[in-house]
Amino acid sequence: MLEELKQLAARVTTLLGSDPFPALAEPDILRAAVRDYPLRGGKRLRPALVVWACCAAGGDPEKALCAAAACEVFHNWTLVHDDIIDADDLRRNFPTCHRQLEQSAQRAGVAGAAAGKFGRDFAILTGDCQQAWANFVLLKLADTGAPPELVVQLAADLQKMGAKLIAGEALDVEMSRRDLAKISVEEVERMYALKTGALFEFCAAAGARIALNDAAGAHPFTRALGKMALEAAVAFQLKDDCLGLFGNQATFGKPVGSDLSERKATTLILHTLERLPAAERAGFELKLGQPEYSPSELDEIREIVRRTGALELVRNRASELAAAARRELVTLPESRHRTLLAELLDYLLNREV
Amino acid sequence: MLEELKQLAARVTTLLGSDPFPALAEPDILRAAVRDYPLRGGKRLRPALVVWACCAAGGDPEKALCAAAACEVFHNWTLVHDDIIDADDLRRNFPTCHRQLEQSAQRAGVAGAAAGKFGRDFAILTGDCQQAWANFVLLKLADTGAPPELVVQLAADLQKMGAKLIAGEALDVEMSRRDLAKISVEEVERMYALKTGALFEFCAAAGARIALNDAAGAHPFTRALGKMALEAAVAFQLKDDCLGLFGNQATFGKPVGSDLSERKATTLILHTLERLPAAERAGFELKLGQPEYSPSELDEIREIVRRTGALELVRNRASELAAAARRELVTLPESRHRTLLAELLDYLLNREV
Repeated sequence: MLEELKQLAARVTTLLGSDPFPALAEPDILRAAVRDYPLRGGKRLRPALVVWACCAAGGDPEKALCAAAACEVFHNWTLVHDDIIDADDLRRNFPTCHRQLEQSAQRAGVAGAAAGKFGRDFAILTGDCQQAWANFVLLKLADTGAPPELVVQLAADLQKMGAKLIAGEALDVEMSRRDLAKISVEEVERMYALKTGALFEFCAAAGARIALNDAAGAHPFTRALGKMALEAAVAFQLKDDCLGLFGNQATFGKPVGSDLSERKATTLILHTLERLPAAERAGFELKLGQPEYSPSELDEIREIVRRTGALELVRNRASELAAAARRELVTLPESRHRTLLAELLDYLLNREV
Repeated sequence: MLEELKQLAARVTTLLGSDPFPALAEPDILRAAVRDYPLRGGKRLRPALVVWACCAAGGDPEKALCAAAACEVFHNWTLVHDDIIDADDLRRNFPTCHRQLEQSAQRAGVAGAAAGKFGRDFAILTGDCQQAWANFVLLKLADTGAPPELVVQLAADLQKMGAKLIAGEALDVEMSRRDLAKISVEEVERMYALKTGALFEFCAAAGARIALNDAAGAHPFTRALGKMALEAAVAFQLKDDCLGLFGNQATFGKPVGSDLSERKATTLILHTLERLPAAERAGFELKLGQPEYSPSELDEIREIVRRTGALELVRNRASELAAAARRELVTLPESRHRTLLAELLDYLLNREV
């Protein structure tokens, strides 16, 4: 599966690298920024969902390629704007878009705060332009033989999906400002479904709709594949909550404990708070928000999270969703691409805790 | 004409006010922000271009209404992001989107800098969501009887136009950081053509394309109306450059002299610098960038701008473009809506200097 994923990633990179759209962006620094994230690589999970769902529903992978590339560009514009909002410095081991633009301004002699503002301003415009690019690439489907009625419907649904994704990001920002005691696990799960799930769902459903010429998105295969991807996305985020505290720092990517430092409302932390005896709750809350955690402090927190049953709860919920996703998948006829999708689910959801 | 413009504005407001798209935005504060600018009113010049161009090309105004509303929403998302970039406080006499969101955060007890950041972050997401909304409304054309091939092509061209408009904004930001001596009048005019002209052109051409089912945008009426709107937009901006120094403060809206305070690279100032004897240039540049100007200081600057012939040059260029726009218009058959468009040009381009 990983080999096929790599091949698909290369095709998407080639397609986006030769697309004429970014040439419309000016000046040069904006054009380069528009191309940057989409061509940085990444796993290309979303394109794989589109193309493999298309094949699993009996379609021709070539006909899904534009939609696959469009979903990848769409994902990337949201990253550019999220990185501004989260004031993040790194993305895939390189400076984030706004930092890179800030650095160019600094090299051109712009001083501190003004360079930061320039970086953010141009990163806003970069994401804006990429959003248009994503739509443009999707609409190209019409040139590759897709019926225009289908293309119009897919494009309209991409917009609705976008609104959900943006709502997910907004809820994430808004929750980060709320008292943890006032956030429910259900709200967080719903935020995951919007922020990550909506695009996953769109990808898999779009692949099926292209295969089946299903403008309404009502075919059972479309529904099953969309539901599968949505459930997998939420399960992935729940796993991520667990890995944020119990993961292996070396393989997980981000520092273990950073969720604690940020007082992030993960399902793991909310379940723990909810299940702690009232007397212990304030003490646990005090442990949150430290800039760093020693290994023994982390162990102590892990012990509490385990003892309350929060870890088990979140793991069980993730497994439940993963199982539901797999059940959707097997409603499709057996095929090589159904197997690839099953392997993709395993890859996403069986990460080591 | 103004009465017809008012009636059209009301229809656009009704259409946007009842559109279900913003309901996808969450939380409430984001949903309200998404609706805010598009429902604040404004002249609705862009919808008028769409609908009247459609009629002038022989089409049914009802069939252009979605496209008209889409162009208005498109315009508004760019305003939301521009207002963040320009750090503006007011838009149509109310706080700008990011300021309004900042104020909500303050009311909820968020402190200074954090409230400002929240306002900007949510305003980024507001514009993002409005961009999707604009596309969604345009794609609804397919529900009102437009052939899907045409809708796909219009939607694809809206994306290209968006990239140009964004490039215009980026060039504007970038120019504001450059030495005035290194900016040419041609560059500024081109920036106007991108930032304001591209959407004007799209609006008028879209109306004609809907009337004529002209997916390729190649019909002579489509080209003439698009060119007319592009030329009118640039002429409008050149007039604006003149009004920025010679306008009547009471009727012009923004403070006369604010272009000088911002050291803005207007065509008027660039022409003046170019035509001043080298010995006087430095002295004139020193007059720029003051926080305020007394009436006598303004008179002195006006005298220099007149004496160099810069005012005449810019006025002549604006008149030339206005005349070119009118020549395009009369290639269409005489009709009530052709007259309305001619009156709209007069309204835009005969503002008092």
